[in-house]
Amino acid sequence: MDVSVDCVVFGYDGEVLKVLLIEQKTQDGGALREKHLQMALPGDLIQSEETLNDCAARVMLELTSIENIFLKQFHSFGDPNRVREDKDQEWLKTYREFPNKRVITIAYYALVSLYDYTPSPSSFAGKTQWMKLEEVPELAFDHNHILDFALQTLKEQLEPHHIGFKLLPKKFTLSQLQHLHELVLDKKLDKRNFRKNVKRMEHVVPLDEKQKGVLHKPAQLFAFNPEALN
Amino acid sequence: MDVSVDCVVFGYDGEVLKVLLIEQKTQDGGALREKHLQMALPGDLIQSEETLNDCAARVMLELTSIENIFLKQFHSFGDPNRVREDKDQEWLKTYREFPNKRVITIAYYALVSLYDYTPSPSSFAGKTQWMKLEEVPELAFDHNHILDFALQTLKEQLEPHHIGFKLLPKKFTLSQLQHLHELVLDKKLDKRNFRKNVKRMEHVVPLDEKQKGVLHKPAQLFAFNPEALN
Repeated sequence: MDVSVDCVVFGYDGEVLKVLLIEQKTQDGGALREKHLQMALPGDLIQSEETLNDCAARVMLELTSIENIFLKQFHSFGDPNRVREDKDQEWLKTYREFPNKRVITIAYYALVSLYDYTPSPSSFAGKTQWMKLEEVPELAFDHNHILDFALQTLKEQLEPHHIGFKLLPKKFTLSQLQHLHELVLDKKLDKRNFRKNVKRMEHVVPLDEKQKGVLHKPAQLFAFNPEALN
Repeated sequence: MDVSVDCVVFGYDGEVLKVLLIEQKTQDGGALREKHLQMALPGDLIQSEETLNDCAARVMLELTSIENIFLKQFHSFGDPNRVREDKDQEWLKTYREFPNKRVITIAYYALVSLYDYTPSPSSFAGKTQWMKLEEVPELAFDHNHILDFALQTLKEQLEPHHIGFKLLPKKFTLSQLQHLHELVLDKKLDKRNFRKNVKRMEHVVPLDEKQKGVLHKPAQLFAFNPEALN
């Protein structure tokens, strides 16, 4: 039995949620399944003396060139047939000594703010791209299922774990904060109530500073103060 | 690399939270480490074609005789040295072909109401017992760490996932519900606010029935209606 780590990397650019995917390729660098290109979540087998967290950090660095990122384990997936579908055989036969060996995977999610800049991941595994969630095609293995589970986890943990701030720029407006919440929770929120609730939160600190370079009336900026949570 | 499942089984009897532990024994049935008996969480290696959930259910049935129980995966533990401490060598050498082989474990928690009766688990692995959380000794492997993590998870999921009801009898008083919350969340709650909040919850249904066989003034009984959550 092998064990791998897979990473669901979410990015938010102020408009949409995106996920980082990697193009599977053959050993000679060509794309697998030329006719409909197969994408996958970044992941790798765990090395013999590597902790789970170290493996996740290595996957991020090697496959996406992204370092020092918020990474959190959320679930393990172990269906005995999860790597045995026809669509995955070509890649498995290229890269695995025992293509039919069972692989249990421990999944992490990561959060990246794409406001200030979009990390352009260089990957030795193939091309990478930030893909809008609603445009994600059929992925390798059970990666669509893992992505759905990650999104559900993000929904559940957004408020209690205050993780939304990792998707926002350091200085953000309340409109940006509300839009992110609406997107992740998949529902419209009442602007007045949202602002009333946020103003009660000591960890959301109003700054003596406004937006710059916008065409509309510049809005006040806020910052997240994690120390106020203790 | 091997993969196992370990189960943290919590029980609540109206007074204290308990966890189900198993006494490790040698092949001839004797206790390991006679001088200070070693206890462990119930667990086993995953069989070659078994799903993670099936393995957890099998562990519960084989090691504790408890069937049809609420079981939920919460975290995987994979420190390369987690099964290499001296205290665990005797058991590993007795039961494992390769005692030094790395084992990654996928942990589940389970919840059992001990109000109406206490399942007396019969185990082929050794004696089992329900132990009060504050009396748990040093356990095998990293099982104290897994137990702590499970307790933290229980705290986080108690309210959002409505799991407390699985630890209560089918018909419960608001005092019982409050006591359980205080115990899991590890803080005193204001009785008046607690009751006000509960009365707003459509999934906590007042019954036309009172406690029986109590010496004090019998309290009204309530039931959990999971359908009201949708």
